[in-house]
Amino acid sequence: MSYTGALNPASDSYESRPHYYIGQHDSDRWEALDEDQYTQVLNSGFNFVTAPITNQHFFQRVVDLHKNFLKEQEQWSQELTPGQRTNPSMPTPIVPTLSNEDTSIYPSQHIGSLIIYSSPWIDLCSPDKHIASISRQVLNLEVAYANFCGARSVVIPGPRSDEDAAGVRQYARAIQEALQVVTRANLIIHMPMYREPGLEEKAETISSIFGRDPEGEPKNDIDLYTSWDSWHTIRSVCEYSSRVFLALRIPRRVPEKALQERWFAEPLHFLTIGQSVFQQNRAGHPSLSKHHQDLINRYMRLKNAPWMILNDVGPQDLDTTPNVKAIEYPSLSEAASKALKKENRRPHSQGINEYVGYMKYLERQQPPYSAMETPALTSFQDWLQSPLQPLADNLESATYEVFEGDPVKYDQYETAITEAMAEWKVLKKPSALGTESEPYNPELICAVAGAGRGPLVARVLRAAQTTNTKIQLWAVEKNQNAFVYLLNRNKREWNNQVTLVKTDMRGWEGPRPKGFDNKISGVDILVTELLGSFGDNELSPECLDGIQRHLFRPSGISIPLSYTAHLSPIATPRLFAEIASRAATGDANAFEIPYVVRLFQLDFAAQKVPGHPRFQQAWEFVHPVPILRADTFAEEKGLAVKYVTEGGGSMYGSSGTNEHNARHCHLTFVCPTRGVIHGLAGYFESVLYASQLPDSDKEPVEISILPDQIDKKSKDMISWFPIFFPLKKPLMFPQDTEMEVSMWRQTDDTKVWYEWMVEVYAWVGPKTRIKINASEMHSSRKVACLM
Amino acid sequence: MSYTGALNPASDSYESRPHYYIGQHDSDRWEALDEDQYTQVLNSGFNFVTAPITNQHFFQRVVDLHKNFLKEQEQWSQELTPGQRTNPSMPTPIVPTLSNEDTSIYPSQHIGSLIIYSSPWIDLCSPDKHIASISRQVLNLEVAYANFCGARSVVIPGPRSDEDAAGVRQYARAIQEALQVVTRANLIIHMPMYREPGLEEKAETISSIFGRDPEGEPKNDIDLYTSWDSWHTIRSVCEYSSRVFLALRIPRRVPEKALQERWFAEPLHFLTIGQSVFQQNRAGHPSLSKHHQDLINRYMRLKNAPWMILNDVGPQDLDTTPNVKAIEYPSLSEAASKALKKENRRPHSQGINEYVGYMKYLERQQPPYSAMETPALTSFQDWLQSPLQPLADNLESATYEVFEGDPVKYDQYETAITEAMAEWKVLKKPSALGTESEPYNPELICAVAGAGRGPLVARVLRAAQTTNTKIQLWAVEKNQNAFVYLLNRNKREWNNQVTLVKTDMRGWEGPRPKGFDNKISGVDILVTELLGSFGDNELSPECLDGIQRHLFRPSGISIPLSYTAHLSPIATPRLFAEIASRAATGDANAFEIPYVVRLFQLDFAAQKVPGHPRFQQAWEFVHPVPILRADTFAEEKGLAVKYVTEGGGSMYGSSGTNEHNARHCHLTFVCPTRGVIHGLAGYFESVLYASQLPDSDKEPVEISILPDQIDKKSKDMISWFPIFFPLKKPLMFPQDTEMEVSMWRQTDDTKVWYEWMVEVYAWVGPKTRIKINASEMHSSRKVACLM
Repeated sequence: MSYTGALNPASDSYESRPHYYIGQHDSDRWEALDEDQYTQVLNSGFNFVTAPITNQHFFQRVVDLHKNFLKEQEQWSQELTPGQRTNPSMPTPIVPTLSNEDTSIYPSQHIGSLIIYSSPWIDLCSPDKHIASISRQVLNLEVAYANFCGARSVVIPGPRSDEDAAGVRQYARAIQEALQVVTRANLIIHMPMYREPGLEEKAETISSIFGRDPEGEPKNDIDLYTSWDSWHTIRSVCEYSSRVFLALRIPRRVPEKALQERWFAEPLHFLTIGQSVFQQNRAGHPSLSKHHQDLINRYMRLKNAPWMILNDVGPQDLDTTPNVKAIEYPSLSEAASKALKKENRRPHSQGINEYVGYMKYLERQQPPYSAMETPALTSFQDWLQSPLQPLADNLESATYEVFEGDPVKYDQYETAITEAMAEWKVLKKPSALGTESEPYNPELICAVAGAGRGPLVARVLRAAQTTNTKIQLWAVEKNQNAFVYLLNRNKREWNNQVTLVKTDMRGWEGPRPKGFDNKISGVDILVTELLGSFGDNELSPECLDGIQRHLFRPSGISIPLSYTAHLSPIATPRLFAEIASRAATGDANAFEIPYVVRLFQLDFAAQKVPGHPRFQQAWEFVHPVPILRADTFAEEKGLAVKYVTEGGGSMYGSSGTNEHNARHCHLTFVCPTRGVIHGLAGYFESVLYASQLPDSDKEPVEISILPDQIDKKSKDMISWFPIFFPLKKPLMFPQDTEMEVSMWRQTDDTKVWYEWMVEVYAWVGPKTRIKINASEMHSSRKVACLM
Repeated sequence: MSYTGALNPASDSYESRPHYYIGQHDSDRWEALDEDQYTQVLNSGFNFVTAPITNQHFFQRVVDLHKNFLKEQEQWSQELTPGQRTNPSMPTPIVPTLSNEDTSIYPSQHIGSLIIYSSPWIDLCSPDKHIASISRQVLNLEVAYANFCGARSVVIPGPRSDEDAAGVRQYARAIQEALQVVTRANLIIHMPMYREPGLEEKAETISSIFGRDPEGEPKNDIDLYTSWDSWHTIRSVCEYSSRVFLALRIPRRVPEKALQERWFAEPLHFLTIGQSVFQQNRAGHPSLSKHHQDLINRYMRLKNAPWMILNDVGPQDLDTTPNVKAIEYPSLSEAASKALKKENRRPHSQGINEYVGYMKYLERQQPPYSAMETPALTSFQDWLQSPLQPLADNLESATYEVFEGDPVKYDQYETAITEAMAEWKVLKKPSALGTESEPYNPELICAVAGAGRGPLVARVLRAAQTTNTKIQLWAVEKNQNAFVYLLNRNKREWNNQVTLVKTDMRGWEGPRPKGFDNKISGVDILVTELLGSFGDNELSPECLDGIQRHLFRPSGISIPLSYTAHLSPIATPRLFAEIASRAATGDANAFEIPYVVRLFQLDFAAQKVPGHPRFQQAWEFVHPVPILRADTFAEEKGLAVKYVTEGGGSMYGSSGTNEHNARHCHLTFVCPTRGVIHGLAGYFESVLYASQLPDSDKEPVEISILPDQIDKKSKDMISWFPIFFPLKKPLMFPQDTEMEVSMWRQTDDTKVWYEWMVEVYAWVGPKTRIKINASEMHSSRKVACLM
């Protein structure tokens, strides 16, 4: 078996899959590699290596410092006069600064290509305050020096245990301080995916040397989430700093999918894989289980895919005798070109480390990028956009072009229009425009409102042809620039059969059928594409209100017929960090904007349980609404109830004309596993058309962007990304939580906005449900969509 | 029995107790009182009356609107073609604006003296979306009109039930909107103290009229805190607005103390007392139980004491026939003077309502104000001050005078100094300054560092006299202005026996005993008063470090000998609102300042349980510290451990010289009842002197500001108010919570600051403790105390 093909950039498979960057780390390395060693490692296939900041000399110096301190403390306590009140203890000694004997790294332009490791023997969590203080001092000295030398990434060992919450808090506080010490380097916290029983590293630390390792009783139940808990405490204390990342240790036994997804949402910088994680295949070569492969494949799909670090997998023959000389590292490319030269002198396959070779093999085995993973689409992953203001903004031609480039959506529209036309013939023919004695070949009046550059106009014409329907087609468009395009298209493509009207659809005077001169008639089929990521968020309900008075009653059809908004609470640490940084740099509303975003690096908090799906419907809009328009309805019908008089509405400044488009929902999501959420993911579904015939068994024609429905209803539709309603503060929740989401669609006649809040309830005992946490009330009123 | 004495401002008891303001409310009053009625009510002893905004005419109009709507909705749904997809419902009708037939209140300069009630028949919580919308519209119309007329306070009935969480959220959102509608009036939410089973009002509402009252099953267990839960949701959604207050309905049965204290901390504006709350005494007159009296007495001790509203207690003969005329109300004083005139015409006691008379009797029965309740001290209740910067600021004479006005503190100091001098003679005499053959009458060297205007100097001199000790007294003061005062006092009062040195104590060169010329000797007793509200928060440890090298070794004594800092988590909604408003108006650090504040209107979250007291010690400082000063110790002793070299310390920018004054603590508080906290209350205790003699059984001389210790250790000591560490977000917690408080005292050699965070754990089952909430990490680094 030869794995080397995967290394060849010229091979077919090379660029169409995620790329692996593979680093080498030796846990007993006390000095940085010298140039020859470095070249040797690169020659064996690795892309980068790690280097410790300090060496054994420094370690010994710190241990001696503490030994002497203990000795002197004992002396001092013996010197106290008997009655004298004793002070709790001597002050902690101060660790002297580094000397040239303590380190083997030096400033150079190449240091950025090394991954720097801080000392694994410190114990920031120690309950012994002297050891904890010395550990903090060592960490500060080390990261400050690495930062001074120009290091870009410093890997810091995570807390040695998650059991001692006070210790984890101390640890977190020390990292927060280290962030102040380093001005530029990223701090990478090395965490296990979970604590594998009996497999935790038992390395020597300053605590174990002085017999201060806490003796925890071995626990029978494994709690898979304690490691994530600690990480969450650390990054919360560091306020989701953009300079704090994760190095995630891959376990020997891959845990449940939910835990994999939990880490998927976190800022993964490295995946570290120890030698013991590998199995031997039948030929005696290293390999990884299918579960490990799936896990890595999943993580490698991220826009910022993690790099891998293989621990203690050789090269076996590496000369690791300590090198006390100062070393100037070659850059990665220099070293690589040297390596290439050496390679030419010896057989290729012989030099490649077999673990690297296997990883390169896995790299080639990854599923290739799909149609939804083009570089353009991938670049949109987790990228926050502000939603359109369709009523206020005029789009540019290129934007239309993007929207038009989605065949799935327009195919569904065409199907819907076709069905509607066919049914209209059945439903309408016997009545209305003619009598049986005076047969009148009915002409279907169709209108496309918001025609843009005409994609729906073309589909209507095709549907008419398919169903052999005589139609009168109107196209209304407010954008003067797009209107020119439409005029041109009408002349060249559509034989001028479309009546074009340049107006905001809410101001359109309605169709005047041929032969009836100026008499205003009704539209039989009204086609619009006004939907946003959350259905109604681009004011489709309000726009359709303004035009539906032209619909023929009662048989006039709106396509879409209805649409629904859907929600699910999610963890998105990266989006939270991004929005928090916007808020910190002056955008006061950053946390009250519903963002359009291609949500990808997220973890769903809710599980699907009977009666409580992961995605839940917030509300629905159906068209046409039963009254034409609130302010004319009462008048027309002469009803007793005045729908709008000089009333007040339920919003400040409102007179209630748009009250019927207000909505609210209270949803309950079930979360069996503890965690945190940062906001609500929003989606929509729409029934474009559903059969109006009694007893029809036809499926409705739908589009959907719901993750669990899109493949069934409108696979590969790319026109909409989800919407994201952020929370100002991450909201923690324990196991067995019921998460209650309240959302409102509010309106005051001039604008529309959303409000949302989340409350956390937990079951304690079979009958008692208690409220344990709640978000603030959020509102997009200040950035509302203008009507 | 005559209650009228209490009404006489000339009586002795009148000003020395809290004053009652008593209002009158009739629950079946549909119109504002006319002038005669109003005068009659004032004549019967009430201080104010309530008035409804709208009348029965309006109520009937809204009921008819909804009736017609239901009729039309039924018609409409019958008109739908069979196959037509139905829209969920008709739009909610809009309530027309008020007409002059709907209300009996009008703008006037007197309206501010009326307490305005919004309609009790609306149902903001209704699960019927039409009823909820109509209710919101009615509320907006009403509060907008009341605000327009000039009303200052509008009482709004609270949610009719706490069971439906979604309903309470709707209610809260409606109040938030009403706050936007009113520009100036306060909204007073009327809440019961708890839901008394079987005693809830069953008034007619728009929901009950249309059969939409939710049918909750009667519950067996009473949960006392559901009403508070609803209030907490409401004010949280309203973001602790300073215009939202509480009218608290006093129950027939007074609940447990913990619930009384919960409400005590809330913004009480009114206490409402129904007729049914009163008992009959033996003479057949109304009276309140002892529990009720205690409850009212407690609440009336607030700086902003609530007013009382008596419901449905007469006057019986009040003519309540609806008055449709527009009414111009007389001002309170006009009406009162009229009432007085009328009073003169008829016997006094006859006109006083017997309920009012009883309340006035209770007013006189209140315990008089104590020495700790002087107007000056009361004005400090819950008033936020920033802590002193004693090392940077020079105090003014008046400030010294305030501090010196506390005899308790200086008496304790004198006791401590006296004991120390007496013991010094025993401990020191045989050794040191003389031999038995050459007896040398030892002179005790005493220094007062930070002498200010000399209060401790005077106490040292008195202690020397008491113990007949020959002393050499030094007084060190950095404030040049206070120094002039000291010079004067030394000449006039102290016969120039004190050696005055004008310097920062950290720069003092030490005492030169008489007869030894320039030889520097040691101080036997060093007296300082550097303690802050949290003990060490005004840098007493750092100051004493700077001077303790002058202490004679090993017998030199520091007074104080030691001090400890203590914490307890508390609810303080008013302080949170105040700090939040500072944060909103530009003080970015408002939530990271430890405030000195006379905490009063608070609720302690923690209960005293074995092993987990309500107040817990954070840390201790003992003087002198075992090394003289970090940076000279190693040098002097020639030790191997260098305490400060060129080390780094554990803080950014630190070299570790003050590392020994860093502290941290992790405390666990137990909270059996659910609630919310807004921060941590901080206190201190100090041992001024404790016997150094072996086997002494003398009690240490202490001072304490701990609420459960101050009366025992230093009763009536007023020199220190507590300190308050706020939280940025209120932190909710469920029942059976363990609250973990982490606090750090951090230092980087140039300044000292605190960091604090709180985590909430709950027990679910006997063995499982889960983390359910956590505050952010808070830090006063940016407003740190400068060394």
